[in-house]
Amino acid sequence: MADARQYFDLPSPFAMKRGGTLRGAHLSYETWGTLSAARDNAVLILTGLSPSAHAARNDIDDTPGWWEDIVGPGKALDTNRWFVICVNSLGSCKGSTGPASSNPETGELYRLDFPELTLEDIGNSAFELARGLGIERLAALVGCSMGGMAALGYLIHHPGAARAHVSVSTAPQARPFAIAIRSLQREAIRLDRNWNEGCYDEQHYPEIGISLARKLGVITYRSAIEWSGRFGRIRLEPEKREEEPFGAEFQIESYLNAHARRFVHAFDPNCYLYLSRASDWFDISEYAEGNVRAALSRIKLQRALVIGVETDILFPLEQQQEIAEGLRAGGASVDFVGLDSPQGHDAFLVDTERFGAAIGAFMASL
Amino acid sequence: MADARQYFDLPSPFAMKRGGTLRGAHLSYETWGTLSAARDNAVLILTGLSPSAHAARNDIDDTPGWWEDIVGPGKALDTNRWFVICVNSLGSCKGSTGPASSNPETGELYRLDFPELTLEDIGNSAFELARGLGIERLAALVGCSMGGMAALGYLIHHPGAARAHVSVSTAPQARPFAIAIRSLQREAIRLDRNWNEGCYDEQHYPEIGISLARKLGVITYRSAIEWSGRFGRIRLEPEKREEEPFGAEFQIESYLNAHARRFVHAFDPNCYLYLSRASDWFDISEYAEGNVRAALSRIKLQRALVIGVETDILFPLEQQQEIAEGLRAGGASVDFVGLDSPQGHDAFLVDTERFGAAIGAFMASL
Repeated sequence: MADARQYFDLPSPFAMKRGGTLRGAHLSYETWGTLSAARDNAVLILTGLSPSAHAARNDIDDTPGWWEDIVGPGKALDTNRWFVICVNSLGSCKGSTGPASSNPETGELYRLDFPELTLEDIGNSAFELARGLGIERLAALVGCSMGGMAALGYLIHHPGAARAHVSVSTAPQARPFAIAIRSLQREAIRLDRNWNEGCYDEQHYPEIGISLARKLGVITYRSAIEWSGRFGRIRLEPEKREEEPFGAEFQIESYLNAHARRFVHAFDPNCYLYLSRASDWFDISEYAEGNVRAALSRIKLQRALVIGVETDILFPLEQQQEIAEGLRAGGASVDFVGLDSPQGHDAFLVDTERFGAAIGAFMASL
Repeated sequence: MADARQYFDLPSPFAMKRGGTLRGAHLSYETWGTLSAARDNAVLILTGLSPSAHAARNDIDDTPGWWEDIVGPGKALDTNRWFVICVNSLGSCKGSTGPASSNPETGELYRLDFPELTLEDIGNSAFELARGLGIERLAALVGCSMGGMAALGYLIHHPGAARAHVSVSTAPQARPFAIAIRSLQREAIRLDRNWNEGCYDEQHYPEIGISLARKLGVITYRSAIEWSGRFGRIRLEPEKREEEPFGAEFQIESYLNAHARRFVHAFDPNCYLYLSRASDWFDISEYAEGNVRAALSRIKLQRALVIGVETDILFPLEQQQEIAEGLRAGGASVDFVGLDSPQGHDAFLVDTERFGAAIGAFMASL
């Protein structure tokens, strides 16, 4: 299957929030639908930590995307109406420049020489992409999870850059429980001796670290309720149990193993560290002397949909309520939707029926 | 400070639930108060995964115990009235026989040659201790966390062995979310190359593994709400930040580091693995063809207090409700207390004001 990714060269040098610049950096992105002559129907999606720009199948790449049930003709983000763009985050490893890319100044991989990355850098680089595509104002900026925080950064740095905003299962700032989880994930990678301060290769690769990090991620992306119904105490068939001492015996353990196996070599560990730390650093209140609500109220939008789920332990619903109230205080007309999906943080990826209905209704009302 | 531990020799051989036997095994325990002439005022405490038998200070050992605010003269477990016994679990490393003990048959440490351990073995061995102390029937059996599951095993195997039961922040069976967390903790230990299939020493010790396991434990023992209030986004003083890449920067990270440092060499990694797996295995429904409620209803008690907290993600309150309903179905008069303590699973150790009030009122009513 062909690759639908397109590439956008960022202005060079591209200045980063915490200092440092990138030269010759680019973003990968994909698009669906057609930009209108007035260039007023663009919807830009910023993703969670690990997805690529391939949100859905398109004419070039027919493999299902990570938000396949949401993006497409007649779907919630209806590509018959909207020109949908999804961008791979700056700092990621799915085609955009990041720690796993070559540093043009040295010819070597950046690794830990990549400048300190913030979610605002991800937002600013996505803004450059939209501008580069000739889009002065987005019809809607959509941000999921980490991408939802990056979207808040985008909006606060670029007033008037979007008419509407869809904020999905995200937060206005990282709180200590989420920081603790992400810190432990990073530590698992850092303590893997194959990580070697970022200098690994495929032969000496921090598989153990990234595998533990991914499993912890999966545990916090889901919910106890969902797993009780789905796995209960079902044991693996004897022939599928791991022979080694204390090896996997329950289905839930095998489920985690499968998730980790798929991820280990599909996502670069250094990129993971950069994006994870950027998430911890994000705090919209920096823009209003430590006041979350005041900072959010500086974001000027016509409309917003803020959506999340009650079973999310990583980005609790209360944080989406904060976003809704803050944006409302800024003058936007805000729809707030708290779903009771059992799937936890990942519900936006799997309970697409309910998320699709809410997002579709909001988009149709624009 | 002197050591208040006493030792009880288990019947030898001592048969384990899943097969295998222990020879020459013993339990360590401590006591407070005086056993009445009728031997009818004994209260036995089964602990969580890691505590020792030192629940509170006593005449011999004046250091504070792990349940100092609950056990003592005039406290919830009033040692002026009750003869309180706390036992270090079989399989632990705080004086009782476990994987870190010498195998009398080989003269070497058991390590992974220790027979498979279940929580029922912990319950059965504690029952032998009570019998050995001349106590035919406990006034109350108290079980916290893992010890609460062991207590259910004790009660179902030994009908009539207790008049009353205090069940604290525990569960009638391990559910997949808790199994996933514990499985990941075990994996962190197992994947530390210093673990070496259980053959480590102080020079080659799985510090990384047990440290990651402990941090994950602390994360799941507490709650997001408590940490938001306690740590927020407070950063470490610059001089306290870790210099290495991606090192600790927030107070919450330093808090986790401190917890891990205290634990690493204080608890034996093999014992941790055995007790952790035993927790996953526990399922009271085994005693009634897979029906939790029916199994619990086979436990005959006069009175029970079942207590837990709403913010507990490891042993959710719903599981304490299951215990309360099951024991009630068995004919006991059951008090159920669901507290809104913000401290999560660990609330029974730290919100001793509310736990003490509930436990004290229940004990006074006996």
